Amino acid sequence: MNLRLAMHIAIVLFDGFDNLDAIGPFEVFSHARTYGADLEVGLYTLSPQDIVRSSHDLRVEPDGVLPDSESETPPDLVVVPGGGWGDHAEEGAWAEAQRGDLPAAIERLHSGGAMVASVCTGGMLLATAGLTDGRPAVTHHGALDDLRESGADVIDARVVDDGDLVTAGGVTSGIDLALHLVDREFGPDIADRVSTEMEYEARGEVHAG
Amino acid sequence: MNLRLAMHIAIVLFDGFDNLDAIGPFEVFSHARTYGADLEVGLYTLSPQDIVRSSHDLRVEPDGVLPDSESETPPDLVVVPGGGWGDHAEEGAWAEAQRGDLPAAIERLHSGGAMVASVCTGGMLLATAGLTDGRPAVTHHGALDDLRESGADVIDARVVDDGDLVTAGGVTSGIDLALHLVDREFGPDIADRVSTEMEYEARGEVHAG
Repeated sequence: MNLRLAMHIAIVLFDGFDNLDAIGPFEVFSHARTYGADLEVGLYTLSPQDIVRSSHDLRVEPDGVLPDSESETPPDLVVVPGGGWGDHAEEGAWAEAQRGDLPAAIERLHSGGAMVASVCTGGMLLATAGLTDGRPAVTHHGALDDLRESGADVIDARVVDDGDLVTAGGVTSGIDLALHLVDREFGPDIADRVSTEMEYEARGEVHAG
Repeated sequence: MNLRLAMHIAIVLFDGFDNLDAIGPFEVFSHARTYGADLEVGLYTLSPQDIVRSSHDLRVEPDGVLPDSESETPPDLVVVPGGGWGDHAEEGAWAEAQRGDLPAAIERLHSGGAMVASVCTGGMLLATAGLTDGRPAVTHHGALDDLRESGADVIDARVVDDGDLVTAGGVTSGIDLALHLVDREFGPDIADRVSTEMEYEARGEVHAG
């Protein structure tokens, strides 16, 4: 009897997210599932929302909401995209950091046992949640100074794996982050099949913290 | 007085499309616009649809419908994604080729003056429309035999530029296709800024037909 449950992956959406920060990993995990990775992946918001608007006005219907209390089981992996940090956009990662609700939820999910990953300036939401303090991490090149000032140990790599905290650089780095996590959690055969299917070549350093 | 209008780019969505085939180019063109490229990009369906479902159940709200008669001005560029070809999925590029309405619309838009581009097995929809007959083209590696049998001159390259017909390989090749078109239409400075912003390195050959 196999008691292992499918790995539940929640990609967080918020108004002003960057399209590819979220959809790149979603694509990788979706293909990995096709190739036998025992996972479920969906797009989740903090509060119920019919449609989430990206910074480029891509409108996506989310799959549900994140657990909103400590009594609910968190996802195994929470992936946080960025968007709208550098220009302090009214909607996006900067706005979410100012508001504070999403960083608080990320911190709660992490405390509850979720592994947390970020793409691009999603890393700044992890930093705002205090998760990267004194830990190796990376973010979009335009936000590296902000990440450093927040107290993280900034690493010059495309993906930084510190176990329960995995961060990536800008936008397309999220594809490499997801491929790395598929490799780590489900093995290189599935990761290689996904790369081949997507005609993608992983590049850049994966730094293991 | 500058009479040049913004380049109108229509990315075609249909149920069963592959997420990244469509969203990769959408991301590139959106960033290019931010950096000054005089373009408009949107996601369009053949018939009115509230929500379009990707092959991986990403649900997207489209921006509108493609022109449905020869009396309407076609977009300057139509980008056709793939998805669901290899497994003959009930929804996707294979199903659209069987149905025939979308290939017919693509042919009509092309005849009306639109440049047509494809990502992944979107190339097979162009082939079904007769556009690739005797012309250099590429598609996802899993559909190369089908493309060859259709009468196209299959080229081993990541992007094949034959002027008003530009095709790309699988999934992430669409990012390279869009960067190539941004370079071609708006110059290398904007294309370079987009690559840098997305932390992407264009790779593979762009074959000019």
